[in-house]
Amino acid sequence: MSFASHDSATRQSQGEAITAEEVAASGAVADEDTARYALILGDDALMLAQRLSAWISRAPELEEDVALGNIALDLLGHARFLLTYAGTAWHRTEDDLAYFRDEEEFRSCRLVEQENGDFGRTIARQLIVSIFQHEVYSRLVRSTDETLAAIADKALKEVAYHQDHAIQWTLRLGLGTEESARRLQAGLDELWASVEELFIDVDPIPRLASVAVAPSTLREPTMARLGEIIEQAGLRIPEVGGSFGADRSGRFSEHRGHLLAEMQVLARRHPGATW
Amino acid sequence: MSFASHDSATRQSQGEAITAEEVAASGAVADEDTARYALILGDDALMLAQRLSAWISRAPELEEDVALGNIALDLLGHARFLLTYAGTAWHRTEDDLAYFRDEEEFRSCRLVEQENGDFGRTIARQLIVSIFQHEVYSRLVRSTDETLAAIADKALKEVAYHQDHAIQWTLRLGLGTEESARRLQAGLDELWASVEELFIDVDPIPRLASVAVAPSTLREPTMARLGEIIEQAGLRIPEVGGSFGADRSGRFSEHRGHLLAEMQVLARRHPGATW
Repeated sequence: MSFASHDSATRQSQGEAITAEEVAASGAVADEDTARYALILGDDALMLAQRLSAWISRAPELEEDVALGNIALDLLGHARFLLTYAGTAWHRTEDDLAYFRDEEEFRSCRLVEQENGDFGRTIARQLIVSIFQHEVYSRLVRSTDETLAAIADKALKEVAYHQDHAIQWTLRLGLGTEESARRLQAGLDELWASVEELFIDVDPIPRLASVAVAPSTLREPTMARLGEIIEQAGLRIPEVGGSFGADRSGRFSEHRGHLLAEMQVLARRHPGATW
Repeated sequence: MSFASHDSATRQSQGEAITAEEVAASGAVADEDTARYALILGDDALMLAQRLSAWISRAPELEEDVALGNIALDLLGHARFLLTYAGTAWHRTEDDLAYFRDEEEFRSCRLVEQENGDFGRTIARQLIVSIFQHEVYSRLVRSTDETLAAIADKALKEVAYHQDHAIQWTLRLGLGTEESARRLQAGLDELWASVEELFIDVDPIPRLASVAVAPSTLREPTMARLGEIIEQAGLRIPEVGGSFGADRSGRFSEHRGHLLAEMQVLARRHPGATW
């Protein structure tokens, strides 16, 4: 089932350097390891998009509904590129990979799967994830894999906006009222134990030297940038930490199953249906 | 609480003729009747945006997730314009009107409040609403109220996309498999009793001759266009009808309360909070 993008209301991709359709049509085929790396990046984007979309019409203000909705759609766009490219290794479509993988086959990190909680907690998660993703994509543009480099170039511009958005909100909440600062700090405290997983060089990354960005090399710049913003916002860097469940396997994720159930129910109820 | 749009991830409004901020800054003040008319249009857009956003990451394909998500954000944009303008009559902001009106103060029609159901039913609702809104806005661009005319001009371009999207899907599902046609027909059948409410000249519309578009004048063109598409798709025009609960009061809406509870919970938990 497809809907030609020039006919549809999907104006998300207008003026973009690449579209998921172009990734599919480019003829580029990912090798097994590169595809598995693309899934790691794509699954993070997909899960976070799903979480953020719950804010549409439910944020504390309508303007923010639109902002979070746009961020969700940007991330869904990145997921489409990355899953489309990953699928070339296995003759599978983006939809096969989104809707017909089982829970343990996803490679998303626990952080993006965490519940939205209140607005402070959502912004805490946005701050951490967007700074991390900005570090990833700003390096991935130099990947020797041309498709990944092109996807990163596209994603980087949008993730830069996501990062600005999260930083502005972090400063406003942190320097706002006692209550706003307390809630943002609580969000950071609760999420901090899930941060370390971002920086683990899970398989197959160690075999992808010039193709992938090794997450372990991003620990220092990500934490430095995060620490800087948290300090500017008058908050404290949480002291908890550790790498509990840090293998992206979902074995320790309390939320992945629920998220996938919501996402996959329709496609699985009518597998292969053309309607 | 506001987030300057040039700093934010809200790129929805880039290149638009007007923004909600510009409506607020224009100095135009709606009179009471015009404001109440703007609420009718704005509440329809707001409620439908909230319903459609539930499809993000849950549609039968990722491309469609993005399409429905974009339509939801377009509608949320229209709601922001219209509620902002309405609010000028009462010194209330768009957020006041979205989050702090009670159930019986909303003026949305039952059709937009109906549950998504399956994809066929969602498309049936999109077909009816987008054709109706296209009829409204294509006339409202000639309103003697300059602000409403400018809002209509902006909304019309986007609603034209929504209409194309709904028509294309109607044809695909209607002319697709037996199952896809059956489900779309079921959606039309279930929703048809809510259609008549669209065409009622509820108060204060009869007093707004050159300002508003009288819904009663749209019955014929809307039904003709709908009938034409339904026939092209190989489906039948439902025979049910009538104007049950057709006053936009919400008295007969089984869903409005639930939709509002979801939308308003956060803002109401912290009324007037700056965080």
